[in-house]
Amino acid sequence: MRKVSFQSVIKTLVVSSVFFALSSSAATLTGSEAKQLSQLKNTALESDLSYQVLESLTTEVGHRLMGSEGDRKAVIWAQAKMKALGFDKVWTEEVTGTFWQRGEVEAKIIAPYPHKVVAIALGGSIATSEDGLTANIAHFETLADLKAAPDNSLNGKIAFVSYQMARDITGSGYGPAVSTRVGGANVAAKKGASALIMRSVGTDNNRIAHTGIMRYEAGVKKIPAAAISNPDADLLVNQLKRNKPVSFYLKLTSHTDPKITAVSANVIGEITGSEFPNEIVSIGAHLDSWDVGTGALDDGMGVAMMLASAHHIAQLPERPKRTIRVILFAAEEVGLLGAKEYMQIHKDNMANHIIGAEWDFGVGKIYKMTSGVGKASLGAISDLAKHLAPLGVELSNDNNARAQSDMSVMSAAGMPSMNFAPDGSTYFDYHHTENDTLDKVNPDDLKQATAVYTTFAYFAAQSGVNFRK
Amino acid sequence: MRKVSFQSVIKTLVVSSVFFALSSSAATLTGSEAKQLSQLKNTALESDLSYQVLESLTTEVGHRLMGSEGDRKAVIWAQAKMKALGFDKVWTEEVTGTFWQRGEVEAKIIAPYPHKVVAIALGGSIATSEDGLTANIAHFETLADLKAAPDNSLNGKIAFVSYQMARDITGSGYGPAVSTRVGGANVAAKKGASALIMRSVGTDNNRIAHTGIMRYEAGVKKIPAAAISNPDADLLVNQLKRNKPVSFYLKLTSHTDPKITAVSANVIGEITGSEFPNEIVSIGAHLDSWDVGTGALDDGMGVAMMLASAHHIAQLPERPKRTIRVILFAAEEVGLLGAKEYMQIHKDNMANHIIGAEWDFGVGKIYKMTSGVGKASLGAISDLAKHLAPLGVELSNDNNARAQSDMSVMSAAGMPSMNFAPDGSTYFDYHHTENDTLDKVNPDDLKQATAVYTTFAYFAAQSGVNFRK
Repeated sequence: MRKVSFQSVIKTLVVSSVFFALSSSAATLTGSEAKQLSQLKNTALESDLSYQVLESLTTEVGHRLMGSEGDRKAVIWAQAKMKALGFDKVWTEEVTGTFWQRGEVEAKIIAPYPHKVVAIALGGSIATSEDGLTANIAHFETLADLKAAPDNSLNGKIAFVSYQMARDITGSGYGPAVSTRVGGANVAAKKGASALIMRSVGTDNNRIAHTGIMRYEAGVKKIPAAAISNPDADLLVNQLKRNKPVSFYLKLTSHTDPKITAVSANVIGEITGSEFPNEIVSIGAHLDSWDVGTGALDDGMGVAMMLASAHHIAQLPERPKRTIRVILFAAEEVGLLGAKEYMQIHKDNMANHIIGAEWDFGVGKIYKMTSGVGKASLGAISDLAKHLAPLGVELSNDNNARAQSDMSVMSAAGMPSMNFAPDGSTYFDYHHTENDTLDKVNPDDLKQATAVYTTFAYFAAQSGVNFRK
Repeated sequence: MRKVSFQSVIKTLVVSSVFFALSSSAATLTGSEAKQLSQLKNTALESDLSYQVLESLTTEVGHRLMGSEGDRKAVIWAQAKMKALGFDKVWTEEVTGTFWQRGEVEAKIIAPYPHKVVAIALGGSIATSEDGLTANIAHFETLADLKAAPDNSLNGKIAFVSYQMARDITGSGYGPAVSTRVGGANVAAKKGASALIMRSVGTDNNRIAHTGIMRYEAGVKKIPAAAISNPDADLLVNQLKRNKPVSFYLKLTSHTDPKITAVSANVIGEITGSEFPNEIVSIGAHLDSWDVGTGALDDGMGVAMMLASAHHIAQLPERPKRTIRVILFAAEEVGLLGAKEYMQIHKDNMANHIIGAEWDFGVGKIYKMTSGVGKASLGAISDLAKHLAPLGVELSNDNNARAQSDMSVMSAAGMPSMNFAPDGSTYFDYHHTENDTLDKVNPDDLKQATAVYTTFAYFAAQSGVNFRK
């Protein structure tokens, strides 16, 4: 997942870098380098390697929540795959955290018209009592409406927020919708509610609910929190329209065992640079997923694209000048734990991180690229854009991008960044659901996206451009 | 559901009628009648009554499998709705049968790569043992392949048929796919299999499985049978491609209690004819549904359309000449029990059934109409087609239609019939699943379909045409 909407990522100004530039030349590629890049791009476009890697991850590992058996398997799988794909170096960096367990969920409308509800615990939610919880519904159309409710007005009630996320190519509907998921339980608890249920943060109309992280505020009573599917939310609203009390039953057994330390790892692999091995072009994705579906879109696609991109470059007769580092982050979903650990370990080496790009959003073709680089390198970005234009990628005039998700932390620490925007129209149909599976991926779109990241990585690693501000 | 594919319905020749015609005139409508029909059609097109009725059924009743609490509620709901909508007569005719209970399902791949599978028991399936069943998968791409397996070759195995239903506007992919569901367990049992699992008969790629009726053959060992969702079938196939044994766990607690007699009813309502009250124009749908979703498409839409059509006609200053009978059949899904009971009661009165049409397929706009009438009345059918052409409905040159589902039984007994074909492209995305809910219905398409049935019913009831062969 992404912590903030894509639009807000674009809008966020890059934190100014105080690091000094390492390379002073702003050379574009030579003729033979450009020719090699064209061939490489075609190789990536024609290859189904990223799809094969994704098929392997989804079939052999499946979902992989931080601390789960799937997570452990994913870390082993990723190292083996990097080695098989010809990476020069492969290592892991341990990441620790807590292990939240989903347990079981049961939800139903008791009255006036009994109906079994498709629900899912929000990530991090506490359990209800063993017998579950029965209470009348207090309905709010938005989180703002819930915030406006008088104190104690929800005593003994279940708060229900029915806000519907809007569909959009940029995913801009996510931000306004996700605030209920992240913080709604705290707002409801302050009003006296026994639990929060919410319409799923999703654009689909399937009887499949969307999970995702929620956070308890210190000093506020913890209450259970769950999302219900869009059709179930519609039906609940329809029952509420009858102006009779609507009684709801919710049972969750989700919990975090404080005695268990979850251990995972960032998995890192490199194609070592031939001239400037200490200068790092980072491409990344997160290896973990929610504990539903097979994490094909979120973020298996990103994992597969980065591994395939590095492999295609590794097949060239010579290594590019700079090092290409593929970072597969641990524990993104539960709070960017892998990214924070990476920063902890590598903070003194951020000046060597020449430029970076992550993939953690969307499932359609990439249509736009936005840089977040020093002005002196905008000419080189234009050159890169010329290589990507035939793939349907347009260069944004903005130069304010952070990298996505995990790498936004590195962008904030001064790493020059690229943001490649795919069509996100259907992404939130599947995001954080049991429906996040391989069949949702269009193999041709995956080839295009892989070709974009391959082109970017080679260009940045071979050109010697200084992208720093 | 429909028992056979829509294409096969069209292709089936109408059984010749031996009944004598009641009306000898083949008059088309008078000018004032035609004008009234145009106004009526516009009323239906502008009214959201059918949507409101469907909202009521799905919100207040929900799913309604023969013998269930929902079924009992539906019978009460339908009578009350008919009375509220101004029907002249409302009555029920008891239908009895068995009550199959779904119970619980648990399905997972145990090895080589553990994965929780979304599965659903086929309607009528027996349970596994209480501990469930673990066995290796024997994979067949088609039912024909399963039939070709040597005797005893599946001893101790679970047969898996991965055939994928094709999407088509006519729903023609249903016939080839559904044979595995109906009879696959018998074929598998004859080869020695312990259970059958199959790819869902559905065109979607959701992690939601499709149920539907299956039948045990006398003298063949009964084995449990379940469908798995399309993405889970893909994943199982991907695991099988690794050429390692794939171990599968299946637990079903579904069962039919032979001591319980399920009691339901056909709910019948009439707008009584002003001149020929004994001549009956039948429009129908089935009131029952599978025990998943809210039966919005299958067949709530049909129920809502028929009730709204009759209501619109009942609002006219005068009753049409013939009686319009709305038949809401019980227990269609479990074997056309309501239709068979209707025939049992009314078999001596079939000559009075002038013409009939059912709705039990599709969710999109109606684009085609096919008659199954005597040649002498084809001119009148052309006249009817002229009224429907502005709605986008084209008259087929074939004159071989049966009515859909329940009413196909009446067509076979000589009732002249109309078949209105809607766009069925997306119907099997939702058919017999938890996803069969109100949100899948496009209100404008529902208005168009309601206007078609309203127009048909008035035309046939007012015109006095003899449609018999």
